[in-house]
Amino acid sequence: MRTVQGLSLSVLIFLLVSFAPAQTQPQLNLMPLPANVQPGSGQLTINQSFSVAVSGSHDASLDREIQRFVSQLSRQTGIPFRTKSGTPPTLQVHAEHGREAVQRLSEDESYELTVADSSAKLTAPTTLGVLRGLQTFLQLVQITPSGFAAPSVTIKDQPRFPWRGLLIDVSRHFIPLDVMKRNLDGMAAVKMNVLHWHLSDDQGFRVESKKFPKLTQMGSDGMFYTQDEIREFIAYAHDRGIRVMPEFDIPGHSRSWFLGYPELSSGSGPYTLEGGGPGPYVDPIMDPTRESTYKFLDKFIAEMAKLFPDAYFHIGGDEVDGKQWDANSKIQEFMHAHGMKNNQDLQAYFNQRLQKIVAKNHKIMVGWDEILHPDLPKTIIVQSWRGQQSLAAAAKQGYSGLLSFGYYLDLMWPAARHYAVDPMADAAATLSPEEKSRILGGESCQWAEWVTPENIDLHIWPRNAVIAERLWSPQDVKDVASMYTRMNAVSLDLEWLGLTHRSARMHMLHRMAGAADITALRVLADVVEPVKDYDRWSDAKGPIDFHAPLTRMIDAVSPESETAHHFSELVQTFLKSGYKDQAAEAQIRLQLTHWRDNDAALHPLLSQFLLQEDVPLSQDLSALGGAGLQALDYLDQGQPAPDSWKTQQFGLIEQAKKPMADLLLMVVAPVEELVRATTSAQ
Amino acid sequence: MRTVQGLSLSVLIFLLVSFAPAQTQPQLNLMPLPANVQPGSGQLTINQSFSVAVSGSHDASLDREIQRFVSQLSRQTGIPFRTKSGTPPTLQVHAEHGREAVQRLSEDESYELTVADSSAKLTAPTTLGVLRGLQTFLQLVQITPSGFAAPSVTIKDQPRFPWRGLLIDVSRHFIPLDVMKRNLDGMAAVKMNVLHWHLSDDQGFRVESKKFPKLTQMGSDGMFYTQDEIREFIAYAHDRGIRVMPEFDIPGHSRSWFLGYPELSSGSGPYTLEGGGPGPYVDPIMDPTRESTYKFLDKFIAEMAKLFPDAYFHIGGDEVDGKQWDANSKIQEFMHAHGMKNNQDLQAYFNQRLQKIVAKNHKIMVGWDEILHPDLPKTIIVQSWRGQQSLAAAAKQGYSGLLSFGYYLDLMWPAARHYAVDPMADAAATLSPEEKSRILGGESCQWAEWVTPENIDLHIWPRNAVIAERLWSPQDVKDVASMYTRMNAVSLDLEWLGLTHRSARMHMLHRMAGAADITALRVLADVVEPVKDYDRWSDAKGPIDFHAPLTRMIDAVSPESETAHHFSELVQTFLKSGYKDQAAEAQIRLQLTHWRDNDAALHPLLSQFLLQEDVPLSQDLSALGGAGLQALDYLDQGQPAPDSWKTQQFGLIEQAKKPMADLLLMVVAPVEELVRATTSAQ
Repeated sequence: MRTVQGLSLSVLIFLLVSFAPAQTQPQLNLMPLPANVQPGSGQLTINQSFSVAVSGSHDASLDREIQRFVSQLSRQTGIPFRTKSGTPPTLQVHAEHGREAVQRLSEDESYELTVADSSAKLTAPTTLGVLRGLQTFLQLVQITPSGFAAPSVTIKDQPRFPWRGLLIDVSRHFIPLDVMKRNLDGMAAVKMNVLHWHLSDDQGFRVESKKFPKLTQMGSDGMFYTQDEIREFIAYAHDRGIRVMPEFDIPGHSRSWFLGYPELSSGSGPYTLEGGGPGPYVDPIMDPTRESTYKFLDKFIAEMAKLFPDAYFHIGGDEVDGKQWDANSKIQEFMHAHGMKNNQDLQAYFNQRLQKIVAKNHKIMVGWDEILHPDLPKTIIVQSWRGQQSLAAAAKQGYSGLLSFGYYLDLMWPAARHYAVDPMADAAATLSPEEKSRILGGESCQWAEWVTPENIDLHIWPRNAVIAERLWSPQDVKDVASMYTRMNAVSLDLEWLGLTHRSARMHMLHRMAGAADITALRVLADVVEPVKDYDRWSDAKGPIDFHAPLTRMIDAVSPESETAHHFSELVQTFLKSGYKDQAAEAQIRLQLTHWRDNDAALHPLLSQFLLQEDVPLSQDLSALGGAGLQALDYLDQGQPAPDSWKTQQFGLIEQAKKPMADLLLMVVAPVEELVRATTSAQ
Repeated sequence: MRTVQGLSLSVLIFLLVSFAPAQTQPQLNLMPLPANVQPGSGQLTINQSFSVAVSGSHDASLDREIQRFVSQLSRQTGIPFRTKSGTPPTLQVHAEHGREAVQRLSEDESYELTVADSSAKLTAPTTLGVLRGLQTFLQLVQITPSGFAAPSVTIKDQPRFPWRGLLIDVSRHFIPLDVMKRNLDGMAAVKMNVLHWHLSDDQGFRVESKKFPKLTQMGSDGMFYTQDEIREFIAYAHDRGIRVMPEFDIPGHSRSWFLGYPELSSGSGPYTLEGGGPGPYVDPIMDPTRESTYKFLDKFIAEMAKLFPDAYFHIGGDEVDGKQWDANSKIQEFMHAHGMKNNQDLQAYFNQRLQKIVAKNHKIMVGWDEILHPDLPKTIIVQSWRGQQSLAAAAKQGYSGLLSFGYYLDLMWPAARHYAVDPMADAAATLSPEEKSRILGGESCQWAEWVTPENIDLHIWPRNAVIAERLWSPQDVKDVASMYTRMNAVSLDLEWLGLTHRSARMHMLHRMAGAADITALRVLADVVEPVKDYDRWSDAKGPIDFHAPLTRMIDAVSPESETAHHFSELVQTFLKSGYKDQAAEAQIRLQLTHWRDNDAALHPLLSQFLLQEDVPLSQDLSALGGAGLQALDYLDQGQPAPDSWKTQQFGLIEQAKKPMADLLLMVVAPVEELVRATTSAQ
């Protein structure tokens, strides 16, 4: 029997070090991976004399971009650049043409970047392509034994899909502009080009309307964007090559409209942002049968269409709970009079009217799956949240579409699961080329039931970079191991932009711990993940209190545990070796020992208010550590473990599989594998 | 012989946990400690219904303060407050009088704060006192098993000294306003009330002058504050109860003036910001013998006196290198004609002229030690950077004074060393009460040769909080252990204000490591400190390149190693126990083992550009780990160690004592004690 006792702590350190991306072979930590990369030899050193020269097309927006690029490179490398006049530029930038004042879908984003020993060259048909190429250059620069440098390389790159978006819901929890802006910076870093701004929902209306001021006065908790702020934000996004598409979700998800304008609703009110109230809970929805509704929307959309210059206008259209329609006799009469068979027909009627208003304002209407109906013109765009099936169906019927199914960041999936979702896969794979061309791309979605300005970055990043790659890079870029390595590298880069996905976690653990040391707390936090899919919603049992603090462990941990991921790999290696890989076993033993002993160290802290619910988790982690160690002992002895022991361990494992405090202990499965292995130990 | 092998990793975790302030006895983590604290029983819970009501004197500045207070409390606790109308306020604030439009020295800052089970009350003679009391309240709130709460307590508090300042040098490295502002927030949190803004020096002139625009156009690298920015900054400081005193350092430290206005200088130029040039290096200084110099200063000071409303105006006056005066025949003639015996007399003449100009603009002149001269009126204030001796001497002569000697943050002293420096100690202790009353307080100083906006917070915080306590709290508050506990707690709080003293360190280590894991790098970084006093200056050998990157290990580590501090304490405990304290020995062994094995883990990373110089440090740390472990073995065996072994270890220890890469390995001394102990082992 080999035990942990003969091993030095250096093994533990190696174990930790080996969690990091391998550094042995220098690789390009680019994400998204460019369409075409030809590695060269040598590298371009980045030192104090670094400078950029611009030729060709050129405007104030590009100048600002170059400035940001230089200051970002300076921040990453810590080098204050001092251009000396007369020295040739390090990076020569050339664009043939300028950009559109309002960024178009399919505007050319391609670029070519050549890095050689003494200089680099970035050329692009448009200044928009230059933006993309500069981000690639920033990712190329790495620390090396001889200084900061970009490796010699020739890159020819363009996006696979023209629409690569991120939806941020600012209704459920208001997200201030500084947080929105740093997320735009992050999007630009991974070449996303659409911010889909979910600006209204049941819980809050977030844009000032001068025509209908009560939308925010009564339909928000005072937190909303003024029109000036919106304009400034759109300019900020445009500078970064990002379109801003607003969404005003109707006729469902619209309770916040009815506080100020109850006449729009299909029920009688009164309405509150919190919902609830006497009687059974009913989702209030707009009344599509009154002309006054369309008069209102006509004015409102005209105002918003001016405020948001993007060619696309999202009207939501999802999850229309028809109960208010069913209960309203006038609406029932209207449906009967117009020969409508069901609520879907009524919504289609509403959408047809709406589409005319949107089109009158020179916008293309976008909506969720549910708006798909043969009566609507083929110009509209359908955003699929329910599956690739509906995206393919839309494309077959001649509608353009976007995929969001599989890209919901709030469902807490691991990056690999998002990465595996391809807009052209499954049902879409059998489409004709023409039909395929209607699939414009996709959008990741950050719904805001469970995020605050403090932890939203932690939920979006770095996983969003993986979806960005799926939408930019060629379809055959799908090596998961490479993806994780590059994602982790890019995750570090993103913090230089001011994103807080790494630091916020530390802050939140410190809040839970008060002035105490958080070492043992991190050990636990590192191996748990939030429950998946809609389990947190189910556990909430009833309407969510959107004003409750989000300061629990679940709010502070990463959606994906790097530690657990790596531990599983180690266990696989060990099992596949026929229990012979001693290095792997040593690492596994140290990790298990660490967990076994952690509860004792953490216990005093767990009496604190925000940590009490985590007591069983910590106990389970320690028990799993012990079980795993015993399993290794049996394996080392080459004897099958006694049945009584196994029964006991499986009981423990089943217990540890249950979510606790809305958290999953992510090391249960590999420990279970170790215990199972003792049956066939030889 | 006991070895590490029988110990579980939990001991290591306990070791780490025990670095943190003890949580067993709830203590008040207040810094500065109030003048009078009467603990009560029970606590005031902070929950969503928390609210503040204000009575008595009341203005817009106080309203903003209350808003900041509430949002800071919300950030710390993660609770979004929702005041319900009709509920009694949690905290009742009352001030008798408002504040001065321009904050006066000795303006009343006292307050009384009573926290009871269901509510708290803060009263103060002025709204300035309310500002101070609100900061105390924020520090009182801690996480407890039953939620966030402030313990019941009655506090009566007022400052010991009316002048509690922080000097920030923005000439050597420009510090942008956002960084300056977050440092004001930090100052306010620890009740400091003067920002001493060192705005000009040889390397850069940082304030726009409309009368003399070439001061910044030619005398800076383009980085300076506009007058509008200055005004906004002063308002920001005033809101936080902080005076802003400008310093324009003359007649020395003034090379930056001479690029635009060479006629002010005593030499012939031409001048560059970098200095150097042909011939031996000479500090350019102002010419005090020309009337045109005074005409210039008359106009300049009039302009700046308007821009900066504070009653005090700092003219520097330190370190006048007289070589240019000695070499200038006209100046020599002038001195002769006026019967001046030496350069001190000439500087005194200059200061007398200067003082009249400053006084004409209704300001009180402040200067460094060197300006002290019987010909100057007693109204001036002398700031001592050379010792308490000169402060006492000034007070005896009737001059008011400030202490900065002992408070130079850039000298990288441990907090305890600053804490031990008292303005009223040593020479000042023998002063009469009247003379003592002339000692107004002190200022910590952050000179900026070795800081950038990235790491300046790391150099100022948390040590500055300790100096703030020295200047606010009663003289008998000097328990060092309590100070460290409270400093570490306040350090965590300060990060909620946006200060980056903790996070910057991580960012900078990540930069050095590239995409690799930094676990082993942190182990090294945790036990080194920058060289002390002016050793870094000496090592720079010649003029400093103020545009060089500051991205080395020395730039990323804390001035004081918590890990080394705690390890020394453990070794003391073990030695004092006669080598019998097994718990302490176990912790020491684990720590030593960790260090011994760290070099192997860190080694691959040390090939990176910024880490190559740290190779010997890492080797020394591992060697020390090994030496300490062997020493423990001899002690356990109860046998004196062989002389040959000791000779070898002392050789190693002497080697490890030498600064390496401008860093000191802070665990050498305790390891040496272990090795020495083997002589007398029994």
